[in-house]
Amino acid sequence: MLRLSTPGYSRILQTDHFIMTFGGGEANVSVALANFGLESYYVTRLPKNEIGEAALQSVRRYGVKTDYILRGGERLGIYFLETGASQRPSKVIYDRAGSSVTEMDSSMIDWDAVFADKDWFHWTGITPALGKVPATTLKDACIAAKKAGVKVSCDLNFRSKLWAEKEAQAVMNPLMEYVDVCIANEEDAQRSLGFEAGKTDVEGAHLDEEGYVKLAKALKKTYGFDTVAITLRESFSASMNGWSALLYDNKECRTPQRSTRYEINIVDRVGGGDSFASGLIYGLLTKTNTKDALEFAVAASCLKHTIPGDYNLVSVDEIEKLVTSGGSGRVER
Amino acid sequence: MLRLSTPGYSRILQTDHFIMTFGGGEANVSVALANFGLESYYVTRLPKNEIGEAALQSVRRYGVKTDYILRGGERLGIYFLETGASQRPSKVIYDRAGSSVTEMDSSMIDWDAVFADKDWFHWTGITPALGKVPATTLKDACIAAKKAGVKVSCDLNFRSKLWAEKEAQAVMNPLMEYVDVCIANEEDAQRSLGFEAGKTDVEGAHLDEEGYVKLAKALKKTYGFDTVAITLRESFSASMNGWSALLYDNKECRTPQRSTRYEINIVDRVGGGDSFASGLIYGLLTKTNTKDALEFAVAASCLKHTIPGDYNLVSVDEIEKLVTSGGSGRVER
Amino acid sequence: MLRLSTPGYSRILQTDHFIMTFGGGEANVSVALANFGLESYYVTRLPKNEIGEAALQSVRRYGVKTDYILRGGERLGIYFLETGASQRPSKVIYDRAGSSVTEMDSSMIDWDAVFADKDWFHWTGITPALGKVPATTLKDACIAAKKAGVKVSCDLNFRSKLWAEKEAQAVMNPLMEYVDVCIANEEDAQRSLGFEAGKTDVEGAHLDEEGYVKLAKALKKTYGFDTVAITLRESFSASMNGWSALLYDNKECRTPQRSTRYEINIVDRVGGGDSFASGLIYGLLTKTNTKDALEFAVAASCLKHTIPGDYNLVSVDEIEKLVTSGGSGRVER
Amino acid sequence: MLRLSTPGYSRILQTDHFIMTFGGGEANVSVALANFGLESYYVTRLPKNEIGEAALQSVRRYGVKTDYILRGGERLGIYFLETGASQRPSKVIYDRAGSSVTEMDSSMIDWDAVFADKDWFHWTGITPALGKVPATTLKDACIAAKKAGVKVSCDLNFRSKLWAEKEAQAVMNPLMEYVDVCIANEEDAQRSLGFEAGKTDVEGAHLDEEGYVKLAKALKKTYGFDTVAITLRESFSASMNGWSALLYDNKECRTPQRSTRYEINIVDRVGGGDSFASGLIYGLLTKTNTKDALEFAVAASCLKHTIPGDYNLVSVDEIEKLVTSGGSGRVER
Amino acid sequence: MLRLSTPGYSRILQTDHFIMTFGGGEANVSVALANFGLESYYVTRLPKNEIGEAALQSVRRYGVKTDYILRGGERLGIYFLETGASQRPSKVIYDRAGSSVTEMDSSMIDWDAVFADKDWFHWTGITPALGKVPATTLKDACIAAKKAGVKVSCDLNFRSKLWAEKEAQAVMNPLMEYVDVCIANEEDAQRSLGFEAGKTDVEGAHLDEEGYVKLAKALKKTYGFDTVAITLRESFSASMNGWSALLYDNKECRTPQRSTRYEINIVDRVGGGDSFASGLIYGLLTKTNTKDALEFAVAASCLKHTIPGDYNLVSVDEIEKLVTSGGSGRVER
Amino acid sequence: MLRLSTPGYSRILQTDHFIMTFGGGEANVSVALANFGLESYYVTRLPKNEIGEAALQSVRRYGVKTDYILRGGERLGIYFLETGASQRPSKVIYDRAGSSVTEMDSSMIDWDAVFADKDWFHWTGITPALGKVPATTLKDACIAAKKAGVKVSCDLNFRSKLWAEKEAQAVMNPLMEYVDVCIANEEDAQRSLGFEAGKTDVEGAHLDEEGYVKLAKALKKTYGFDTVAITLRESFSASMNGWSALLYDNKECRTPQRSTRYEINIVDRVGGGDSFASGLIYGLLTKTNTKDALEFAVAASCLKHTIPGDYNLVSVDEIEKLVTSGGSGRVER
Repeated sequence: MLRLSTPGYSRILQTDHFIMTFGGGEANVSVALANFGLESYYVTRLPKNEIGEAALQSVRRYGVKTDYILRGGERLGIYFLETGASQRPSKVIYDRAGSSVTEMDSSMIDWDAVFADKDWFHWTGITPALGKVPATTLKDACIAAKKAGVKVSCDLNFRSKLWAEKEAQAVMNPLMEYVDVCIANEEDAQRSLGFEAGKTDVEGAHLDEEGYVKLAKALKKTYGFDTVAITLRESFSASMNGWSALLYDNKECRTPQRSTRYEINIVDRVGGGDSFASGLIYGLLTKTNTKDALEFAVAASCLKHTIPGDYNLVSVDEIEKLVTSGGSGRVER
Repeated sequence: MLRLSTPGYSRILQTDHFIMTFGGGEANVSVALANFGLESYYVTRLPKNEIGEAALQSVRRYGVKTDYILRGGERLGIYFLETGASQRPSKVIYDRAGSSVTEMDSSMIDWDAVFADKDWFHWTGITPALGKVPATTLKDACIAAKKAGVKVSCDLNFRSKLWAEKEAQAVMNPLMEYVDVCIANEEDAQRSLGFEAGKTDVEGAHLDEEGYVKLAKALKKTYGFDTVAITLRESFSASMNGWSALLYDNKECRTPQRSTRYEINIVDRVGGGDSFASGLIYGLLTKTNTKDALEFAVAASCLKHTIPGDYNLVSVDEIEKLVTSGGSGRVER
Repeated sequence: MLRLSTPGYSRILQTDHFIMTFGGGEANVSVALANFGLESYYVTRLPKNEIGEAALQSVRRYGVKTDYILRGGERLGIYFLETGASQRPSKVIYDRAGSSVTEMDSSMIDWDAVFADKDWFHWTGITPALGKVPATTLKDACIAAKKAGVKVSCDLNFRSKLWAEKEAQAVMNPLMEYVDVCIANEEDAQRSLGFEAGKTDVEGAHLDEEGYVKLAKALKKTYGFDTVAITLRESFSASMNGWSALLYDNKECRTPQRSTRYEINIVDRVGGGDSFASGLIYGLLTKTNTKDALEFAVAASCLKHTIPGDYNLVSVDEIEKLVTSGGSGRVER
Repeated sequence: MLRLSTPGYSRILQTDHFIMTFGGGEANVSVALANFGLESYYVTRLPKNEIGEAALQSVRRYGVKTDYILRGGERLGIYFLETGASQRPSKVIYDRAGSSVTEMDSSMIDWDAVFADKDWFHWTGITPALGKVPATTLKDACIAAKKAGVKVSCDLNFRSKLWAEKEAQAVMNPLMEYVDVCIANEEDAQRSLGFEAGKTDVEGAHLDEEGYVKLAKALKKTYGFDTVAITLRESFSASMNGWSALLYDNKECRTPQRSTRYEINIVDRVGGGDSFASGLIYGLLTKTNTKDALEFAVAASCLKHTIPGDYNLVSVDEIEKLVTSGGSGRVER
Repeated sequence: MLRLSTPGYSRILQTDHFIMTFGGGEANVSVALANFGLESYYVTRLPKNEIGEAALQSVRRYGVKTDYILRGGERLGIYFLETGASQRPSKVIYDRAGSSVTEMDSSMIDWDAVFADKDWFHWTGITPALGKVPATTLKDACIAAKKAGVKVSCDLNFRSKLWAEKEAQAVMNPLMEYVDVCIANEEDAQRSLGFEAGKTDVEGAHLDEEGYVKLAKALKKTYGFDTVAITLRESFSASMNGWSALLYDNKECRTPQRSTRYEINIVDRVGGGDSFASGLIYGLLTKTNTKDALEFAVAASCLKHTIPGDYNLVSVDEIEKLVTSGGSGRVER
Repeated sequence: MLRLSTPGYSRILQTDHFIMTFGGGEANVSVALANFGLESYYVTRLPKNEIGEAALQSVRRYGVKTDYILRGGERLGIYFLETGASQRPSKVIYDRAGSSVTEMDSSMIDWDAVFADKDWFHWTGITPALGKVPATTLKDACIAAKKAGVKVSCDLNFRSKLWAEKEAQAVMNPLMEYVDVCIANEEDAQRSLGFEAGKTDVEGAHLDEEGYVKLAKALKKTYGFDTVAITLRESFSASMNGWSALLYDNKECRTPQRSTRYEINIVDRVGGGDSFASGLIYGLLTKTNTKDALEFAVAASCLKHTIPGDYNLVSVDEIEKLVTSGGSGRVER
């Protein structure tokens, strides 16, 4: 998607220019993984004009393979972003009606070729929320991925501006069958799948850790996931958040493990969840211990909050350093 | 429409920000007329979000009355603009699929109320090109305008990215019945209505003035227009144009009159045609001699080419000064 | 006034450009009220040049009625702003010598017409501080307002760079006779009217709430105000403030009521007091309970601190949401 | 003066920021001379705030000596600038009411000390136009300069927004007695002194060279100047000018000499006249032949038109290169 | 190289920010070829820090293969650019001492692998001018290229700030033995190789076409090149140039052919020569007629002059359209 | 040095422009001292091109005397800066290979003339780290300074990217003989001189004050310094630091004194140490009590952290006000 954000903390109504960057769940994850040094492909459909070309280059620039990016359709989806501060939340306005990816169906792509010799397939709950065509295309992709023995992760990512909870649950529940690694934030499980996260106040800063442990256990049991990861955001204000996560699996986290918790002065929190997902995928693919993967994911994501734009442009070294030495913020020179 | 243009002469593929302004044929004309001091209303439909609100404020700011601006629908149409130079043309990418105005039908608006106590109704050929709903809505507006004794002007404004010539001619020809003042550029008449402008090379700089005189006469005769105005652009390059116009009517221009001709170093030529239309409307409403109206329109439009953005933000005084004293460009101090 | 502020946290001595916006006490209040949906008029005098025109458009853009904006005089007042951070305070340099509004006398305006069918008249202590002519004009306005049965509010707004305390008190005390709603910050009452606010350290972060309660009572008793509102700013640093207020009236706040208190990460605190005043006026005009009006005013003002520029460009919905749900700063998407 | 200009070719009414630079006749000349390597002092009075300090630093930065810059008074004069293009002229809005320099009288400065061991004193017709105090102060300075044997140059610089022709002539004529080198543009002599420049159309592009030769002769004869220099601007448009000059003296230009003529694509023409004056002063002080001084002055000034801002930031080398090799515009690398 | 250019036409001494782009002869050619759709590799050495990474991404972004980009060494070369206008030339300041590429020797790279299955090797006279190490490395590359049957082109590109003519000729002449396609501008042949181009005034606008024809013939005969191409720039000023070229070969241009000539309003002429070289390579590889290749090259290069930055970001379609229809500069919409 | 920093919190890999300022240890100190009103000379060597000239003007602008700035050599050193936030540290990339100052030897400068009638000589540990030539030149300067009776201060300023600890200690220890006032941060003494600061965790936020007192005592005893000053930074994150210092001397601080401690919301911490050094020098030269000098230095430095750029552009008044009244951050108006 094309992201058009106002400069500084300006509101749309008072400025006369936008910063142009690109983003969106899967794009963000593919860029982060390429940036970490993995071979990463982004599958999507972009219009055949300069805007589509700029979107393509924005991921190629960071090393993402573009072999499976289709070109065609009318337009690229857009989202406008007003960055909030303190008690004023950031605001996203979607403008994705008729975007090229919503008309991408499985006849346009050879899923078996896509998944040949690949290790991992990641998708988010935003894609099926875009309409029936993308939901069907996604299901085909999941089936092909499983057939090819590719691991599948899903970030539930509920978006109330895209669909209602009922509708979401009807589409998302059947798709869980193909998912190995399920990633959710505080409210996703409840809204996308119909699960209750105890009595946690998801709007505020208070966290019911107990509740999240129960939720992780219930999710894993119900759907048979290999791994459940839940991000825990304490939203004190648009400028300051607490940030940690929970991992529950069949390996080193057989009892749900809570990660290190960071207090973050926020520069840009859009893409925060995606930076966790990409950190987790990288961790699970390269670390020998899943607790380490969790720490990597949370630290990666902590650093993302300090960078403008959707993409998490931090290196593996920087993340490892935060994990081992903490974030003292000393100048490196 | 939301206009997103790259800074300076940058291409979309090389920059990371856009200048946000607003524009579009009818918006441009209404802003110019309000700016000239006339009571000017803009009738359109804008989405009920910050982008729509910003569009509304962009015309209200310059004094346009917003009483008939409807709010609703999905999105505001967008166009991306790359400003060209020398041999590289400016480039417009439309992104208007599903915009609010394309779903605006006559049930949403009381045309009789709109035209009560009004003098003039201006529309452009872009509106019916947006789809059947806008074309029908426009026809209803024309009928109501004529019923209310309001004068109707139309800028033919053919846009090949919006419709084919055949389709355009089928829709536009019947609408001419309601038009009193017809405005066209070198190629509009041919492509929108099926008329031939002689053998003029409309892509280049050469002008067959004879041909345009014949065209004006033929248009007036065929459709019974009160007034026919044809703008004559000599496109030497994206940086330098010749600019003049022709007027033919039943008053002071009973033989087609050619205006003063300006050679223009171009800052921004988008909105150039609209600045002529608004200058002409102002001239015909306030001048006693239609030749003076023509000179006012051409000078207004000449000055527009020196201003960034779609809107013609020059004053009546500045235009009159160009008409009477020429454009020596001396600093005013 | 024309506000010229340096970008980011730059000092004037190190940058080479300014951001241009407009502001000033009464302008800020009129924009906020128009933005909340009330019919709002701004009465002032602006020079007849492009700078004056730009000032006029800056309020018209947000819906303020400009019928009573006079045009004439030499220049628009200017203030230069350096935005502070942490221990470095923001700095304002006034440049208002000879501004058009300082020469506006009552012969230029028909106050009876201005106040016909109006509900409320708001002024600030800055206006009479500009000189004898504005002080006299203001007094005439107050008399006309009372005659027309219009409610009058005053934000005391002492400015030490404009006048001395003695001089202020001599002018302000007699004007209190016309005031129904008196708004003050921690030090205004003391410096503008000669009242003591107990032993509160107004420069620092410590608040003597007891003292402010006494002050509110004394003000109300002495001048017979319907309503006294005192804003309570705890200035920890230029980057972080505590913010709340006190209301005392004959209705729901018969004992002085303290509002919710917000801790604010500051983006721009200029116009903070004006955003409280406009929130209070809106609240008193539309809420059935004056405690609700107080909460609305404090929340409106809290949000203003997160927006660059003088104007408070937040919607009623956003404010209500902060009042009812708190400011968790979750992204809205 | 503080110069606030809009970015690009934006009008004041459509932009939201200003570029901040400093300028004004004498400042421009002193910066250019310091930049050429001469010891150059700027005598003025600046307010004692950050704006005044920034102005002082803007000349000190380029090497101007600030020993005689007084500090005090209310404010720095401002001018707003809209840069024109093609047929749209640049526009200057003055805001200098009550500026510090207008209250600078001779009691504040020891003119004898100022002129001790100095070679040259330059002033422009703008200074006496600012009011009686500056006019008197200037006269005192002229008397002291002559007493100290310092050469005096004056750029007539008529500004219709500052005074009427009658008033100007009454003040300027007596001051000519102290002037050795008189610099004028096409219309200055006529408007400041009451002299006729033949029938030249000073608004347009046509030049009556004959007339200017006569004018130069008449000026020299009437006032007994050592040197008369007249700049000849052919204003084709705000984007393209012809530029040359005429010199008449008792040395190498005993018959009036016309310089090389340049056709200039204009970037910024404000300060163009001052760049000629400073070029001429430098030339007359360092060249052995006054024809060479003329060529240096015209070339310096030609280059100024290609630089944004008032100051002429070109080096002696660059100017000499234009004089000897012409302005082919080859990249230097 | 890292290119740091001032905004607009600002001089380095007056601005406080730089635009960051990347460029340099071979980088520019490889980006253009990738952008035209050819498989294009860029062979260089970049430091292993963020600046080097940004340089790498700047070419990868446009599709260049980065397999042979070595990482190591101290720093990336920088050039500072001040864009000139009218009589003021653009100015380049090189800062390349100790850059990574100057220490790249053949032990670091397997030239045989580089040239396996490749068609073309392009280098410029700037590389050997950087020092003995790069000159030797380049010679090794040439030998390997010839061994692999790869066609070799060289743009002579003399840079007087890098070496003296004597030194250049001693190094360049022996390298000509490996060159099939020799590209030169008006002065390169003379300064790099010691050849005379007749009496052409290379600084100015006058062109001695006869002389260039002789030069092309002499070059071809002396060194046995397959193809000689000479670009012909008429430098009227920094803002306006004439632009054409001459081709001489054994195919369709057996008598030297002069291309179409363009008059260009210049936006950015740095990289102009490289855009010709890349256009010519593309043309010779894909066109059946070498005259067509010449026309493609000149048109590609003409369009480059209208784009900021070193890279030629125009499409094949845009170039073909200029060749066939001319550059009328009509808006594309 | 030329400092090129990314805008906002952008990473180098995602932006396309840099902010250009100048800085470096000694430059920062000389600018601050000139800005405080002392006569301050900066001794360095800058290349003879526009970049060198811009560097020279950047210090002259703030009043630094440039008499001893040599011109010559290849280039100006550069550092690229990415401003960090929260857990992401700021990052400095040095690019100083072959800079002019590294080739400046004592034959180029008359040290006796430099130190004639001067009071103080300040240097930092960065200079000898640049290579043998600068180390030798520095030693010559120290000898000349002592001979002239000039007080010498040194900020140890260890930079691990410039040299190893062993190497540093071998060079720095002998130089201590010439130093009267030694300034160090938490880790400098350990790394530059081989001293232990107890078991303090210098990367984190925890401070072992006891340890620093011991360190100060040991340093003073070992080298016989008149004064030892140690800055104490508690690095909670890149956005928030604690900041204080310790002074130990033979006057008012005969037992090591700890200053006031500030909690700072950081805008820009580069140059923080230099702002302490310059504050201390100013304090020791102008205050009667060395405890006051310490408080001045810490407050000066606290304010520097709120200003973008290396230079500390705060006035003596602003610093005194922070010392006496604290940093409540109230708007000054």
